[in-house]
Formats: sequence, structure tokens, C-alpha cells
Amino acid sequence: MRAMLVRDIGEFPLIERLAASIEGDSDRLFERVGQSGYRLRLSIGDDAAAWESPSGTSVFTTDTMVEGIHFNLDNISWHDLGWKTLATNLSDIAAMGCEPTYSLVTLGLRGDLPVDGLVEMYGGLMEVSERCGGAVVGGDIVHSPVFFVTVALLGKASEADPNGAGPILRRDAAAPGDQVAVTGHVGCSAGGLRMMLEGLNFDDAVAAHLKSAHNRPLPRMQEGTRLVTSGVRCAMDVSDGLVDDLGKICEASGAGAVIHADQVPADDFLRMAYPEEWLDMALGGGEDYELLFTAPPDVMNRVTRLLETPVAIIGEIVSGSSDVLVLDGRGERVAVRSGGWDHFRAT
Amino acid sequence: MRAMLVRDIGEFPLIERLAASIEGDSDRLFERVGQSGYRLRLSIGDDAAAWESPSGTSVFTTDTMVEGIHFNLDNISWHDLGWKTLATNLSDIAAMGCEPTYSLVTLGLRGDLPVDGLVEMYGGLMEVSERCGGAVVGGDIVHSPVFFVTVALLGKASEADPNGAGPILRRDAAAPGDQVAVTGHVGCSAGGLRMMLEGLNFDDAVAAHLKSAHNRPLPRMQEGTRLVTSGVRCAMDVSDGLVDDLGKICEASGAGAVIHADQVPADDFLRMAYPEEWLDMALGGGEDYELLFTAPPDVMNRVTRLLETPVAIIGEIVSGSSDVLVLDGRGERVAVRSGGWDHFRAT
Repeated sequence: MRAMLVRDIGEFPLIERLAASIEGDSDRLFERVGQSGYRLRLSIGDDAAAWESPSGTSVFTTDTMVEGIHFNLDNISWHDLGWKTLATNLSDIAAMGCEPTYSLVTLGLRGDLPVDGLVEMYGGLMEVSERCGGAVVGGDIVHSPVFFVTVALLGKASEADPNGAGPILRRDAAAPGDQVAVTGHVGCSAGGLRMMLEGLNFDDAVAAHLKSAHNRPLPRMQEGTRLVTSGVRCAMDVSDGLVDDLGKICEASGAGAVIHADQVPADDFLRMAYPEEWLDMALGGGEDYELLFTAPPDVMNRVTRLLETPVAIIGEIVSGSSDVLVLDGRGERVAVRSGGWDHFRAT
Repeated sequence: MRAMLVRDIGEFPLIERLAASIEGDSDRLFERVGQSGYRLRLSIGDDAAAWESPSGTSVFTTDTMVEGIHFNLDNISWHDLGWKTLATNLSDIAAMGCEPTYSLVTLGLRGDLPVDGLVEMYGGLMEVSERCGGAVVGGDIVHSPVFFVTVALLGKASEADPNGAGPILRRDAAAPGDQVAVTGHVGCSAGGLRMMLEGLNFDDAVAAHLKSAHNRPLPRMQEGTRLVTSGVRCAMDVSDGLVDDLGKICEASGAGAVIHADQVPADDFLRMAYPEEWLDMALGGGEDYELLFTAPPDVMNRVTRLLETPVAIIGEIVSGSSDVLVLDGRGERVAVRSGGWDHFRAT
């Protein structure tokens, strides 16, 4: 019998398998580090790990982009590559309701990459830091036959509870009766990616908008901290696709969800560019980096009044299943083409 | 004129170039994060970044191993690969005089890697954590045409100064008159690597010792914290080679060093395996992960009595240059074949 390979198992089952293999050892190690004053709250399975220390709540996340898998230098400028690689990490911190502090950047570099390109890339890292907070304090540069960029980013809760533990946004805190909402609009990143991969021609303004949605996502930093100060406790960022990511909230929370396709926010650029497929992209496309969150109606009311960013209420959390049901205007079930962004299974 | 490429410039000049390009922006960002309660002490240029917060001193490091560049699955077991990839990071924390807390592990995986191998690798991560401290709290798994492993690791100072800032070990704290010392022995890792690459045959005990030195380096955790509590302030770990790394201490400290080849500690296994080249390996080989440190003679006296690990005093810090001069028993200059471990220039 052939040994099971990475491509046979897929990304999320592999993570589960590895996490299960170290569970007992890990618990003992967490306990030991906790005794030194760093009490772990969340490990594998949320947008970031989280712990308490005398400084309050800290969060810690990492995200990698590999050339040919997650980006292609024909389709993204060096500057935007720097922006995006840090933005995806900042978005994880926003999705915890926290603020970024310090990051390390690892570059795996082919010898034939241009030094000037890397300098421009660092310009993009600085620009998104200026905009969203945090600072790059070091990293590692290694030789690699394939170009990759890894960022590891720390953050902290923006305020402390009276008992010292800062409230954070978690995936496992959705409850039946919660409304489901998403900031901004979804689908443009997937629309931009497809445009670039297939060389589609759109009106200049449409093309620029879609490309920017894919290459320069704006992490929802202020929105994340406002959610948490408004009493929201359940959120994640949309990286694998709206329905797919809502499924992760449902699984973590032991609940299901119903969402209404006609309430899913997609902007006019996307509808114009893809009159037939915009809804598929909005429901199943990834890398939007909007915040997907749930809260009871009274909290949701407060939030929608407080946030300057548009918030669309798209459905509700229900008990008795962990599925996400998508309904159209007539109450008919909509099939979602998704499968997330499992790059292992895709190849 | 052809654009300058990564392979034209080399690792350390590239780091300097990128650091210089963001210097002004970085200072402003450091200041802003500092105002939120996280005051930066060290950024690029030491074994780890360091800052102060209400929790005391934190340190933050990252290290990557790329298949075909830093390891080869023919020469290292999955278990040891897990051990080594975390050990190199733990060693950076030891070299700051600190203790590890939490880490994130990123895997860039080819689809044809065996799942069981990765499970064994996580066993190695657990074993070195059990031995040295810290805990893995998450990470990222991505598809990549080349296998790589990146660890990002946090640590904390083991004690606080009366003013709240924990003392740490830095590269820039050497002063003329300091003695130069190194823990344990050096060269066996390079000897092990060469044995495996060239398929050399040694006595079983010698072969096992050299292979283990390369594949399972033991980070000097307790030694690092004892150095700092004994009053040592200048150290780094030996990763690029003894003379090369001492050069970095000298450059950071604005001083020079003289070391005595006949005092450099190399063990009998290495001398037996490489009767002609053991000194080259001890002086210029890398990945020993011993602690290289400097201190005034009175502090050094105390340290050598306190540490259970052997410490060899190999030379002294001098003023008036930033070179490292290696002398043999007759006072003649010894040429060191090194150039460090710049994998860009090597290809």
C-alpha cells in the first residue's frame, strides 16, 4: 500500500492530523509556558493564536505567499506584493479584534531576482504598515529555488476587560439566533484574479478596481477593534471564500447558518464585469479580507450604526446542523462552487 | 546595464540594503508602536528583535530551512528535521539570554511528501520543546514546489532589572579588554555535513557523533540565561562559523579580536575524523549553535565557575580595528577558509 501523501489528504485534514498527533504533548507544553506567566487562550484553529501575559492579550499569526501558487510576478507589482503579504497577516489580527505590534519577514529568494524589486517590495511593506499599524523588526533571508515570502505578526488586544483578559474575536463564539454579517463587499478579488489569469479585457476603471481588490486588499483594522468594543465576539476574515469561511465558524461553534444570496454584498464593478458569475465569485471567491462576523440582533444594531464601513446582514446562525445553507430570493437552495482554496487538491 | 540581482549582492549586503531603504519609515513606525506600550530595543542585526512591554523584555526571531539548500531528506530523518528547525530558533533565543515562549511553524509542502513523515517531524518539534522550553501554538501550511520549514519564535527575558528592563545578550556590547569565550566545542557540525555529502566512512561512534552534531544541535538554553544572570552582556550563537560570527560581534561593537587557534575547542571525534582539516572546520564551519560571548576577566571567571558546560577562553577583544586575527601557537597568523554560509554566493 502506498504511503499517504500530502496531495492525497488536503490542507485542512493535514492540519487536523498534525494537530492531533501533538495534542497530548502540546497540552503539557502549554501548561509549562503558562506557568511562566504566558497563559494560552487559543492555539491552532483560529485566525491567530492568543495568550494572556502581564501585558494583556497577545495574538500571533503567520501567512506565506509562494510564487506560482499564491502570486505571479507578471500580475502584481513588487510594491503591491509587499503590501499584500503583510496585509493578509494584518487581516488576521483585525479578525481577532486586535492591533498589530511587531512582525518578522522571511524571504526565500531565487538568485536571479532583482534587488531593486525587493527594495520596492519593502516600500509596500512600509506603506501598509503606515496605514494599518505595526512595524517590521527583522526577519530572515534564505536562498530558495522558489520565491516565497513569510510574515509572522504579533498583535495585542485593544482594550482590557476588568479582569485583565482582553476580549477578542473568535471563530467558535457563534450562537443560534445570531445574525451573520460581512463588511464591505466580496468577490472582487476573485474577479480580479480571473481577469489577470485569463487576460480578460474590461473597461479601465473596472479593471483597475478588480486588480486592486486582488493585489492590494485593505485589512479592516478599525472595523475589527470596533466590533470587539461593541460587544461582538465571533469573527474571522474572508480568505477562502464567504461560504467556506462561514462553514469554519459553524464547525467551530457547533451550529449551522442560513444565508440569503440576494443580501450578499457585491459591488457594481463585479456585477458589470461578470454579469453571469458575480454571485459565484461573491459566495465562493477568496482573498476578500473582509470581516465575517456574527452577533445577537441588538449588538448587530449597535455595530451597524457605529461602523463607517458598510455592513451587510446576510443571514443567521441556526441550531441543529453545521452546514451553511444558501437560499435565493424564492427560498430555493443555491449551489456554491467553492471547495475553498486548497492548493494541494487543486493540482 | 543589467539590473543587480540577488546573487550578485550576497545575503548580508542585501539585508543592509533593504534595512537602509526602510530606515526612516521604520523609525517612525517603531515610535508609533512604542507609544502603544511596546518600546523597541533591538531590530535588524542581532539574533532576535527585542522590545519592552508591561510583561518585561520580549525577543522575537525566525529561521527557515529550505530543502536542497539547508537540508536533504537523504541525510536527515523527519524527526531530526523537526528537532533542528526549531533548535536553530531556540538557539537564537538562548543567544539573547532569554527563554522561549510560543512559536508558529510554517510548512511549504510539495504534494508528494509523505504525511507520516510530517507527523514524525512534529514529534521532533515536540521533543526539542520538551527539552528546551516553549510550545508550538499554530502556523501555516501552504503548497510549494520546494519543501521549506519556517519557525517564528518568541521569548522573554528570564529576569527583570530593577528598572523593569530585562538584561539581554547583544552583539554590540563587546569592549576592548573583554575575553572571548565559546561553550562546548565547534566544528563537528561541519564535519558531519561533509561526511554525509561526500559519503565518507568513519568508525560508527565517530560517524554517529558527527551526524548528530549536524542534525540534532542542542541549543544552549540554560547556558544563555546563566550568562546573562552572571553579568555577561555580549553574545551570539555560532551559526555561520566561529571566526565569521566573531567578526559580526566585532563589527557591531566597533572593536577587533585576536583569537588563539590552539585554544579553540574541538573534540577528539572531529580530530580523529579529519586529522588535517579539523581546525579549519572548528574556525570556519557553521551550525555549531554554541554560544560565543565576551566579558571582562572578572565576569568571565565567575561564568566559567558557574556553568556546568565547558567554556573555552579563546582570545580577547582589542581596540583599533574590526578584524578578527587568528594566531597559531607561534604567534603566526592563521588563514581561515570561511566566507560564512552565504548560500547565494555559493551557487
